[in-house]
Amino acid sequence: MAHTPVWFMRQAGRCLPEYRALRQKHGMLDIVRTPELAADVTMQPVRRLGVDAAILFSDIIVPLVGIGLDITLEAGTGPVVAEPFRSAGDLRRLRPLEPEADIPYVLETVRVLVKDLDVPLIGFAGGPFTLASYLIEGGPSKSHARTKALMYGQPGVWHAFVSALADIAAAALRAQVEAGAQAVQVFDSWAGQLSPADYAEYVLPASRRIFAGVASQGVPSVHFGVGTGQLLELLRDAGASVVGVDWRVPLDEARRRLGEGTALQGNLDPARCLATWEAVHDGVQDVLQRNGGRTGHVFNLGWGVLPETDPDVLARIVDLVHGA
Amino acid sequence: MAHTPVWFMRQAGRCLPEYRALRQKHGMLDIVRTPELAADVTMQPVRRLGVDAAILFSDIIVPLVGIGLDITLEAGTGPVVAEPFRSAGDLRRLRPLEPEADIPYVLETVRVLVKDLDVPLIGFAGGPFTLASYLIEGGPSKSHARTKALMYGQPGVWHAFVSALADIAAAALRAQVEAGAQAVQVFDSWAGQLSPADYAEYVLPASRRIFAGVASQGVPSVHFGVGTGQLLELLRDAGASVVGVDWRVPLDEARRRLGEGTALQGNLDPARCLATWEAVHDGVQDVLQRNGGRTGHVFNLGWGVLPETDPDVLARIVDLVHGA
Repeated sequence: MAHTPVWFMRQAGRCLPEYRALRQKHGMLDIVRTPELAADVTMQPVRRLGVDAAILFSDIIVPLVGIGLDITLEAGTGPVVAEPFRSAGDLRRLRPLEPEADIPYVLETVRVLVKDLDVPLIGFAGGPFTLASYLIEGGPSKSHARTKALMYGQPGVWHAFVSALADIAAAALRAQVEAGAQAVQVFDSWAGQLSPADYAEYVLPASRRIFAGVASQGVPSVHFGVGTGQLLELLRDAGASVVGVDWRVPLDEARRRLGEGTALQGNLDPARCLATWEAVHDGVQDVLQRNGGRTGHVFNLGWGVLPETDPDVLARIVDLVHGA
Repeated sequence: MAHTPVWFMRQAGRCLPEYRALRQKHGMLDIVRTPELAADVTMQPVRRLGVDAAILFSDIIVPLVGIGLDITLEAGTGPVVAEPFRSAGDLRRLRPLEPEADIPYVLETVRVLVKDLDVPLIGFAGGPFTLASYLIEGGPSKSHARTKALMYGQPGVWHAFVSALADIAAAALRAQVEAGAQAVQVFDSWAGQLSPADYAEYVLPASRRIFAGVASQGVPSVHFGVGTGQLLELLRDAGASVVGVDWRVPLDEARRRLGEGTALQGNLDPARCLATWEAVHDGVQDVLQRNGGRTGHVFNLGWGVLPETDPDVLARIVDLVHGA
């Protein structure tokens, strides 16, 4: 490979004026449910930024909406769950995902995209802790207190719950790959709220179900959560071939901990993109130097693009990474 | 010492019905400015929970209000800064703190308390990154993007800024100790948003100013931020005698990294207090076992008490730690 590949989490989104223009007319989930729109939004950053991969425009709650749960996405808030999960009885509501019947529009978007794209398409799904937290809290949470109260207090219910969520995620990923996606990423965004011992006990078995569910498909699989510095080895042990690293752990230290056999993705602080170009440049160079020219590095931010980011800065980062 | 000492961050606050009753009639800053009320609130958890230390009821923004900045505390939001700091010109607004003139009510509260308390009183101040973030963002922030843009993009302004904030914090701590506080804690709550290299470059020099400012007073000094697992060595290197550890790093690992010479404070997940007593009990025992009976451990939560916590659970935790 000639250069380090680069893409950005949330590259398709509010940092792009063409996306904001589309959102004037369409809701987020309406775009997801309309393959031509979802495909267009997915391609916007590929066209404008020159990134080496596209990531499907969707949301981790989409498969849950697909099985009939009443979840909306509120601008500025995130997912809002009409009836939060609170007890064993709620498990019934988590029926298995039948992708072709439940989320046909997602698969159609993938099929449209793989015909048109000349870079790989990344499919994705939500990880067990993060999906569980949204369903139990009813939306985003700072403390994840209800989630943890169930996890610590009713471990049997919890394990059944995250196992079912893992099966839904695995089915969604398998279907995306069958439709043509060339890589997958599991976003367990809030898993970093847990200690290693708690992650290993309460989440890792479910995460393993997800990665085992796509293992036979032979595509690269990325495992990422924000602030998961204490969990990197466990994210790998779940079965991922690539571990996403947020900006709080230097890439050379992540490599030392995970060994040369695990590829790394990351990890420029997204907030740095709002500083001067000189500061951005130094940050990019620091990430590249800590990788030390190894293959097995996918350049990315350490978390999603901030909405106020100037897309020209992202395009310059792509050029810088490609020129290195 | 007969047993491991225990107190809880945010033990004086919304988890206590007697505090909520008082807040029906008085604003948070009104209580802080009224020594008899602030002293009463400080003592509430000592009376009810049997903890081994009191922490002054105040807020990290109080010294900034004391020097004339227009900052309010909004219920459910946090600090709201009327005119956020954005450029070098704003540095003028950070004049040195003269504790006896600027925050006399805080010192009076300390004096009232040390007469009445039969446990040590902990004074506190905000750390440089956290205070800077509130002033620059204008309030709480998820991404701290403006703060980091200034930090990375205008390092000269940034260093002058956090240095001035550190001097204010140090003056506030010194005055609290002179008034009778027997220990101090620096809450750099959001420092965990930074990588070790960035913390070392942009924050550590200011943190050192704070701890150097109280070193001659010879009281124990705790340094804490949430999600600072990647920074524990640097929090110690700032000059603290005790490092606060949040629940994401096991106490035995923190000890291994910091050595036997540094005392540790922590680190039960506050969300666990909302689970069954069995789960709470197991969590407390796990923390105690990881400490392995060493002195140099102050039992605490890994972050503040959640408002929905049952104070009876906290009282049982105190008993459990005392009986261990």
